[in-house]
Amino acid sequence: MTLTVGELSESGLLARIFPRLDRSASVLLGPGDDAAVVAAPDGRVVVSIDTLVQDRDFRLRWPNGYASTGYDVGWKAAAQNLSDINAMGAVATSLVVSLTLPAATPVSWAEGVAEGLNAAIRELGATDCSVAGGDLSGGSEIVVTVAVMGTLQGRNPVLRSGARAGDTVALAGTVGHAAAGWAVLESTVPTVPPVPPAPPVPPASPVPAADAGLAADAGLAAVVGLFCRPRPPLAAGPAAARAGATAMLDVSDGLTRDAGRLAGASGVSLDLDPSALQRLAAPLAGTAALLGADPLDWVLGGGEDHGLLCTFPAGVTLPDGFTAIGSVMPGAVSTPPVTIAGSAADAVGWDHFAV
Amino acid sequence: MTLTVGELSESGLLARIFPRLDRSASVLLGPGDDAAVVAAPDGRVVVSIDTLVQDRDFRLRWPNGYASTGYDVGWKAAAQNLSDINAMGAVATSLVVSLTLPAATPVSWAEGVAEGLNAAIRELGATDCSVAGGDLSGGSEIVVTVAVMGTLQGRNPVLRSGARAGDTVALAGTVGHAAAGWAVLESTVPTVPPVPPAPPVPPASPVPAADAGLAADAGLAAVVGLFCRPRPPLAAGPAAARAGATAMLDVSDGLTRDAGRLAGASGVSLDLDPSALQRLAAPLAGTAALLGADPLDWVLGGGEDHGLLCTFPAGVTLPDGFTAIGSVMPGAVSTPPVTIAGSAADAVGWDHFAV
Repeated sequence: MTLTVGELSESGLLARIFPRLDRSASVLLGPGDDAAVVAAPDGRVVVSIDTLVQDRDFRLRWPNGYASTGYDVGWKAAAQNLSDINAMGAVATSLVVSLTLPAATPVSWAEGVAEGLNAAIRELGATDCSVAGGDLSGGSEIVVTVAVMGTLQGRNPVLRSGARAGDTVALAGTVGHAAAGWAVLESTVPTVPPVPPAPPVPPASPVPAADAGLAADAGLAAVVGLFCRPRPPLAAGPAAARAGATAMLDVSDGLTRDAGRLAGASGVSLDLDPSALQRLAAPLAGTAALLGADPLDWVLGGGEDHGLLCTFPAGVTLPDGFTAIGSVMPGAVSTPPVTIAGSAADAVGWDHFAV
Repeated sequence: MTLTVGELSESGLLARIFPRLDRSASVLLGPGDDAAVVAAPDGRVVVSIDTLVQDRDFRLRWPNGYASTGYDVGWKAAAQNLSDINAMGAVATSLVVSLTLPAATPVSWAEGVAEGLNAAIRELGATDCSVAGGDLSGGSEIVVTVAVMGTLQGRNPVLRSGARAGDTVALAGTVGHAAAGWAVLESTVPTVPPVPPAPPVPPASPVPAADAGLAADAGLAAVVGLFCRPRPPLAAGPAAARAGATAMLDVSDGLTRDAGRLAGASGVSLDLDPSALQRLAAPLAGTAALLGADPLDWVLGGGEDHGLLCTFPAGVTLPDGFTAIGSVMPGAVSTPPVTIAGSAADAVGWDHFAV
């Protein structure tokens, strides 16, 4: 018999979750009171909130047979929130988590969420961060909401609105891999070899380079792994801020759509370099061929890798992990917000409510 | 035709939500970037998270015919989170909100959530607070999660663990009214007169006294109103901290259960005064008679009024809004955590997963 959360009291379930969570020095008072207390050393706190919903953001059983684990969902919930702090040029200090779980949810699945949250924080390099508190609710479907806090370490936040004509457009991390992974999961192509329980994260290099290993094909397991457990480049955001980045956001809804948001907020146009886009698409060619897809569609339209899109003043040496992918052009009513070698890029990407 | 959220884009829905939200000075950078920036003037931030789930915490149509509005749910989501900050002796600075909405949700209902959030912040007196950001998701049922941040204004947080034998046990706000309101909603007794769209909040007195108007019967509409739109006494938490409170928590799961938590964390026993409990139950007598219930069950077992349970050193003049309801006794293995005139109080209260 599988033990379910409905068979435990709330305190019984919490007693299984807390031991799976590390505690960072930023968390001055952890779970157990009505609220936690977290350090905000420069007198400001950066905050964001993000939610994963069963059958929208993940499936317990995908068409291709893969079963999203609690570990996957906990990892992804942490990663996408850590990415929002990264995109401000800040460093995460804590997460608070709300879990809504049907009574039939296996306790082991809920324990996996805690383990995935904790592993993502640790393995992605958010060493100042830990889970400071949380909330449990019953519901008819699984909903995992994480709010994340961070510190700017005395710097100004990097906004979407600061890009200027002449700036270089650069990317850290990957784009399109998660979209390719999603396409595999939604296909009838089984994930072979099986997705490993935790992705290997290079311990030495804190910033995965945007084009690291792009010559090699990413492979099915890798793209599915990146969809399930994204790897935002958490050292890249603060590095970009220190290097003088003029604007930044994380690519969560697709490169074209998110580039359009940056362009709109800054009153400019972003022109992307087709050869750079081709290099970003190259490692997805094998998966695309298997599914009859165009890897460039994934690069331009796919979100959820949580790479960083950034603009830097021309001539700045790009920080480790960033690759130039275009340049900022003056905005004009007649200019599309995002172009590829001067031609309008279609605005494709994810909308939570649009059919 | 009712316009539904499924007919709007995410940005279209946000464009209807943002104008309904005020902005406080604590929010240094509001919605529009990957994260918000909030002031944390003493270098620390107090944080909590809480969730309301459709058909668990509220119903769109109750057995007695009442329909929970978006305004109700937004108000309650804000109020229960503001109460957690209050219970630490802190002052709220910002909320971030995640809304999970089925596509068929009327846009007006979602707008109501924003209006209710904003109204609760303003009318409960959280003048330093506003909504700093949020997230929208699709889902099969409505889930509203709020994370709240606050400032300790240089004080130490008041924990659950500081009560000492000899302390006075005191309460601010009400207990049992929300439970009575819930019982009405779950009954076949219609709410007459209709629940007003917004509860009258006394503008002059920031701390509703625990026994204000207890001589009068609260009435059906009032208890339903307090369940739907609780009124935590937000000035009482900081006032208690300034007065030297030794322990504090908000009564969200029932007086007996929450008193037991404070007793357990402090290693003491709380002995409650039966005459004080009777005074708390008196305004619920009329509703209880109508439903064939015992109002003391609501006082002892009902949560969600979000009153404050607090212990003060003996001899301290209780701050405005607090009423003495018992005293702290030495803890011992043989002593129940909560007694009423020396006899064990049954541990009743709300558990999210227990059947």
